[in-house]
Amino acid sequence: MLKKPTIAVTMGDPAGIGPEVALRAAARLRRRARLVWVGDPGVFRAAAQRYGVEEVRSIVAVSELAAHERRPGRPTRAGADAAYRAILRAVELVRSGEADAIVTAPVSKQAIQELGIDFSGHTETIARLADDAEVRMMMAGATLRVVLVTTHIRLRDVPSRITRDNVLRTAEIAGEALRRDFGIRRPRLALAGLNPHAGEGGAFGDEETRLLRPAVEAGRARGLGLDGPHSPDTVFFRARQGEFDAVVSLYHDQGLIPFKLLHFTDGVNVTLGLPFPRTSPDHGTAFDIAGRGRADVSSMASAMRLAAEMAERRRRAS
Amino acid sequence: MLKKPTIAVTMGDPAGIGPEVALRAAARLRRRARLVWVGDPGVFRAAAQRYGVEEVRSIVAVSELAAHERRPGRPTRAGADAAYRAILRAVELVRSGEADAIVTAPVSKQAIQELGIDFSGHTETIARLADDAEVRMMMAGATLRVVLVTTHIRLRDVPSRITRDNVLRTAEIAGEALRRDFGIRRPRLALAGLNPHAGEGGAFGDEETRLLRPAVEAGRARGLGLDGPHSPDTVFFRARQGEFDAVVSLYHDQGLIPFKLLHFTDGVNVTLGLPFPRTSPDHGTAFDIAGRGRADVSSMASAMRLAAEMAERRRRAS
Repeated sequence: MLKKPTIAVTMGDPAGIGPEVALRAAARLRRRARLVWVGDPGVFRAAAQRYGVEEVRSIVAVSELAAHERRPGRPTRAGADAAYRAILRAVELVRSGEADAIVTAPVSKQAIQELGIDFSGHTETIARLADDAEVRMMMAGATLRVVLVTTHIRLRDVPSRITRDNVLRTAEIAGEALRRDFGIRRPRLALAGLNPHAGEGGAFGDEETRLLRPAVEAGRARGLGLDGPHSPDTVFFRARQGEFDAVVSLYHDQGLIPFKLLHFTDGVNVTLGLPFPRTSPDHGTAFDIAGRGRADVSSMASAMRLAAEMAERRRRAS
Repeated sequence: MLKKPTIAVTMGDPAGIGPEVALRAAARLRRRARLVWVGDPGVFRAAAQRYGVEEVRSIVAVSELAAHERRPGRPTRAGADAAYRAILRAVELVRSGEADAIVTAPVSKQAIQELGIDFSGHTETIARLADDAEVRMMMAGATLRVVLVTTHIRLRDVPSRITRDNVLRTAEIAGEALRRDFGIRRPRLALAGLNPHAGEGGAFGDEETRLLRPAVEAGRARGLGLDGPHSPDTVFFRARQGEFDAVVSLYHDQGLIPFKLLHFTDGVNVTLGLPFPRTSPDHGTAFDIAGRGRADVSSMASAMRLAAEMAERRRRAS
């Protein structure tokens, strides 16, 4: 009865590996979703031809780049601008109901900033366009999921940015996403500690007793399946063994070191807290290898598959 | 021609899993080393009988515990005292040339401290007895080795404890150990960064440019095969793929999260910088399961095997 979900796939920087991994990964997605390609039509058509991908049916054009502006490996200002406009257009498509989810191919943050655009990343831009949604970053793989309380800040600033409320909100957003988008009825969330051995009873650091334990208690009072704080050096192993559905991680490397160790090539970045599913592959533009068909498509393929699953679950629930 | 190396194995807390894992692991070591058991003779004999291990030949007695003081699962003051004295005696054995290496079974830090003894751990005590050797902690497994610049301190204190000299000394100690004790002619050491993406060119944190890069340059000037600082979230994956022999990690969880994810049951703690090899299993006393023969002996078996290999290499070189 239900139609397949429609996924808006942004082109990414046309000089990067985005167009090529998106098109090659699409061939693996098969009939799970309808794809709408958002970007420069010439970029998609050239890539489809180069990699022998069947005709790209549904394109939403945001630019008309000249041949030299769509050459792999050679970033241009026009290309960065088209990449940025593809993001804006993709958000419009989901906001208007023409698409159910967004998958973004990698852009060059620096190249977009050099156009004078205030751009600190896909996540921030999409959250702003979605009525300033309160979002969190999840990295998802087949054996581990981590959700971050803080992201791209100095390690020195981490302790002061961890608050009871930030931890609690992260766990709530994660719990809601696991239920609604991942189909896990009673998500089991583990909270990682901040200090070695989660402070070992206050011997090194008091954040566990002062902030983290109260956050866990508040979460439980609200019915969240949250426990901890757990010793950071064992909680990811335990999650991988199946004890938890996700680990709420306090800082970038606490979550990403174990995640990338297990899912270096096939991890998916998921933005939680948006009114629609949004995923992306866990890699950059890789200008140096673009256009050679050598880029690993696993991460993009996983991103598309996960976006399709998330969109299907939201539609079934609605 | 050469005799087998002699390893002094300390009993650990007699109420913990130490005696049992040591004896059961010894059966796996076969003829690679001669073992000298340092502790309470009754504890070793009872455990040998219980686990059907062949007669324990060489025992250096440090106590004569009563039956109730050697019961698994029931820690006593006399037991903790014997465990502590076994450590001191083992160091005497290597200092006098009667043993070539030490393997320590787990003790209860708290139980020893409650005797009024200033004890912050095996590593610190053994280093002090070895003329205040400058030591570093390595965790070693078949696929990953990490060496720590800082260990059991609050995460909040990490940035201020990282200095160019501390990083450089850690890398030198690691390099020397890998050459001498691990038989790696030209060790390839990676230095992990402190901040996400190793600071991304100064965007989040300046420790990489201010301290870490100068440490790498100084190390290279001294002929150390050290490079970095690398992005923390990918360097452990790269090391696991064989690109590096060890990762110099700046704080406890940076190194131990990836290490325990890969080597949860078979990791070995190695103290680098001592005048003799010293290893230990990567687990505690586990009073709750002691005496049931259920404890996993992999880590202790790896600790014994590694101590034997290290001792052999030192003897061949001398």
